[in-house]
Amino acid sequence: MSFLSTSSPKLAPWKVLLVDDEPDIHDITKLTLSRFRLDGRALSFVHAYSGAEAKQVLARESDIALVFLDVVMESEDAGLEVARWMRQDLDNQFTRIVLRTGQPGQAPEERVIVNYDINDYKEKTELDRTKLFTTTFAALRAYRDIMKVEEARQQQMHYREGLERVIAASAHIFQQRNLQDFANGLLQQVVALLRLEQSMLLRLRAATAISGENNYEILAQIGDIDGPLLSPELLTRLDNSKVNKITHLEGDTYIGYFPNNSGKHSLLILKGVEEICELDIKLLEVFCSGVAIAFDNILLTQEITDTQAELILRLGDVVESRSNEAGNHVRRMAEVCHLLASASGMSEEETAVLQHAAPMHDIGKIATPDAVLLKPGKLNAEEWEIMKQHPTVGLSILNGSQRPILKAAAVIAHQHHEKYDGSGYPQGLKGDAIHLYARIVAVADVFDALMHKRCYKEAWPLEQVVEHLRSVAGQHLDPYYVDLLVQNIDKALAINQRFPD
Amino acid sequence: MSFLSTSSPKLAPWKVLLVDDEPDIHDITKLTLSRFRLDGRALSFVHAYSGAEAKQVLARESDIALVFLDVVMESEDAGLEVARWMRQDLDNQFTRIVLRTGQPGQAPEERVIVNYDINDYKEKTELDRTKLFTTTFAALRAYRDIMKVEEARQQQMHYREGLERVIAASAHIFQQRNLQDFANGLLQQVVALLRLEQSMLLRLRAATAISGENNYEILAQIGDIDGPLLSPELLTRLDNSKVNKITHLEGDTYIGYFPNNSGKHSLLILKGVEEICELDIKLLEVFCSGVAIAFDNILLTQEITDTQAELILRLGDVVESRSNEAGNHVRRMAEVCHLLASASGMSEEETAVLQHAAPMHDIGKIATPDAVLLKPGKLNAEEWEIMKQHPTVGLSILNGSQRPILKAAAVIAHQHHEKYDGSGYPQGLKGDAIHLYARIVAVADVFDALMHKRCYKEAWPLEQVVEHLRSVAGQHLDPYYVDLLVQNIDKALAINQRFPD
Repeated sequence: MSFLSTSSPKLAPWKVLLVDDEPDIHDITKLTLSRFRLDGRALSFVHAYSGAEAKQVLARESDIALVFLDVVMESEDAGLEVARWMRQDLDNQFTRIVLRTGQPGQAPEERVIVNYDINDYKEKTELDRTKLFTTTFAALRAYRDIMKVEEARQQQMHYREGLERVIAASAHIFQQRNLQDFANGLLQQVVALLRLEQSMLLRLRAATAISGENNYEILAQIGDIDGPLLSPELLTRLDNSKVNKITHLEGDTYIGYFPNNSGKHSLLILKGVEEICELDIKLLEVFCSGVAIAFDNILLTQEITDTQAELILRLGDVVESRSNEAGNHVRRMAEVCHLLASASGMSEEETAVLQHAAPMHDIGKIATPDAVLLKPGKLNAEEWEIMKQHPTVGLSILNGSQRPILKAAAVIAHQHHEKYDGSGYPQGLKGDAIHLYARIVAVADVFDALMHKRCYKEAWPLEQVVEHLRSVAGQHLDPYYVDLLVQNIDKALAINQRFPD
Repeated sequence: MSFLSTSSPKLAPWKVLLVDDEPDIHDITKLTLSRFRLDGRALSFVHAYSGAEAKQVLARESDIALVFLDVVMESEDAGLEVARWMRQDLDNQFTRIVLRTGQPGQAPEERVIVNYDINDYKEKTELDRTKLFTTTFAALRAYRDIMKVEEARQQQMHYREGLERVIAASAHIFQQRNLQDFANGLLQQVVALLRLEQSMLLRLRAATAISGENNYEILAQIGDIDGPLLSPELLTRLDNSKVNKITHLEGDTYIGYFPNNSGKHSLLILKGVEEICELDIKLLEVFCSGVAIAFDNILLTQEITDTQAELILRLGDVVESRSNEAGNHVRRMAEVCHLLASASGMSEEETAVLQHAAPMHDIGKIATPDAVLLKPGKLNAEEWEIMKQHPTVGLSILNGSQRPILKAAAVIAHQHHEKYDGSGYPQGLKGDAIHLYARIVAVADVFDALMHKRCYKEAWPLEQVVEHLRSVAGQHLDPYYVDLLVQNIDKALAINQRFPD
């Protein structure tokens, strides 16, 4: 049996395990060391009366600083076996071991100290009050010294592991390509970084916010929000962070501030963070400085991508405007192409290329003379031949680029008047010989022309449009994409509503 | 005086400092411990015969494992003072101290062990052969244990510091916006990461390479290259890295492989790296995985930016082609605008916006009827009025965007026919009321028109062009930019050579 007997000090006591089969030894040791203090800390004793019992205690309690270990107990070398087991099997290198033997002949000092990883060897007879005291003092001081270094090692290790998590989290953040994914990813990574448990995650009220002039836009949030997230009090603190450009932790709310080259402030708000340690705050700061860079990059990429898309749409508009076909034709076509491509399972990247390239399909009409392009009546054979040149002209305008979008635009411009049965122009291509993109554009183009008023026709009712599309499926149009369009007609109509003429 | 006496073992010996004013004690100790081994390591002794001498030795040699310390030497407590000084002033917490006193009454055990941070206390009389041996054994074992933890702590610390350098280097890399800066920055950061000294930096033959199909493009290199960098042998190893997708270090050359989402392999070659430790290789790997992401991002951004630039140029081409003004007019204009803006000290960002926007200056001509645009002879008054609408039409096409490039393009399209003296159209703006961009575009446009053949005129000789530009400076054109063009005429002519009609 073992029990804990403590003198009640203010500082945690040093835990000493007494292992001896003679109860008297326990009592005398306790008594002798009752006034012991090292660094203001007293002793607390744990008792074991056999080697087996000592092992149980040691396996259970990892914070034992010192063991006084008898040699001869249930066997002649029971104590030595405990010493061996501690270092080898339990892999405990820190607890100090003082061997205390009553029969030195049984365990000769030199042999024992060489063969067993013990720290001191005493014969019971030599352990008078003074020696017991000084032995304990020296052993505990050695334990203290080694634990001080061990704690420093662990601190370095935790910091190192934290930095590794920061690097992994940053890698994730830097791979995001749009603002929404970035913001969501950021919060997830912060949660992972702080090793918040599920229960704490639910309590976490967190949001990333950009502050433009006076308003905050919430980009992402995780966790239950009861009541408004941006309370007047929180808003005051956000403004404070923004104005003073500082990060601070107050109460249960952490507000991380980081400026951006774009001139927009961004703020990371963590609510419900009551116990965040210094290390985590430091890691958070390291992480946030990377986030600020990623954020800048995202905004820049987004700006360029948006500019590109807008440029293409305006280019498409310009071409359409020459044919007096104003309105949102090219915007709707781009969206319907996106709809059909997505529905067919095309990759996100290819879908984006198609969407951006589609508005340029009629670019060749730029070279069609006014006399043909703007003729109010029906074209004669010669005029029709001129009109039919626009796909080839479009190809010549867009040809020869290595850019995926321009390559796609070139093939679309060239092939969007081909027909599935081979009766189209300019090449008379048939079926799968027509590029996928061009087949999709053809469906979107015909659909849009039928659904809207043109100078030469009225808008058709939906039923008649669907009926017509079905009737030309396999002839003019690829039946697969006609089917997809009909299946997703609600979404197509929603696009038309979003971009009316 | 102190001197080193070593038995010559294969493993480094444990260094033991003997401090005693009686030479006999030194001799006996050495003799007694002459066959001592711990972990196969013998002892080497350092000798000091006074407290003062002991301090000198300890200050000089930081790797002393154990001190046997006499108490009474030049003073009654000279040994105790050495102990205090070691722990407090020298801040040496690791060396084990065994106090060895001949006059225990002078330094009572309990008082000494409490007041001085020593590890063992022995009276000289009790130190027989066995006790001296076991005391030394226990003390050195304690030293070994604490140093093991200390080394682990230092390792963690070095790794942590390395990761901090990786994070700083990555931050730098992620802030680069173009491939060239990225590649140069990468090499600089690798050099910083590996803490290479100046002399090693000069020896470093390093290059980042992208492998497309079968060729390697050198993006950046640092250090002296004697002979071809990509020797046949190195090429074989590069191919090997590429095919097997592996990073490897062989001889003095480190080849880091990292794949990219774009499908292009990138390789980091470090030559002259003979001694790179395991930790550095690990840090390099962590760094390179971040670099791969940054590289992907750079390529993506570059791709979008290049696509955007190409789109705008092709849009400009399309407009020009309607006026039968084929050739490279818009490309040259974009470059000359860039030249003038840079020369005027405009920021890189603003210069890039101007360069990208300039090709769209005539976009309004898209709506000009063929009858006017393509009329071979002189326009009559009515036709001229129609022609003069193109800046306003251009504005209407490009207006209302929030994108910097489109905003710039709109103002350029609208104002590029304004004249510095207020005699231009459509608004009759004067001097600085004309947007900077439009004034620059006007100079570039007139210069290009004069230098090249048009359907209505021949190319003028350079002298006549310069003379004309000077004559209209202050009237048609902003004299400041005319001056800049004339000052940089060589660069402008180089642009014309690069993009001939």
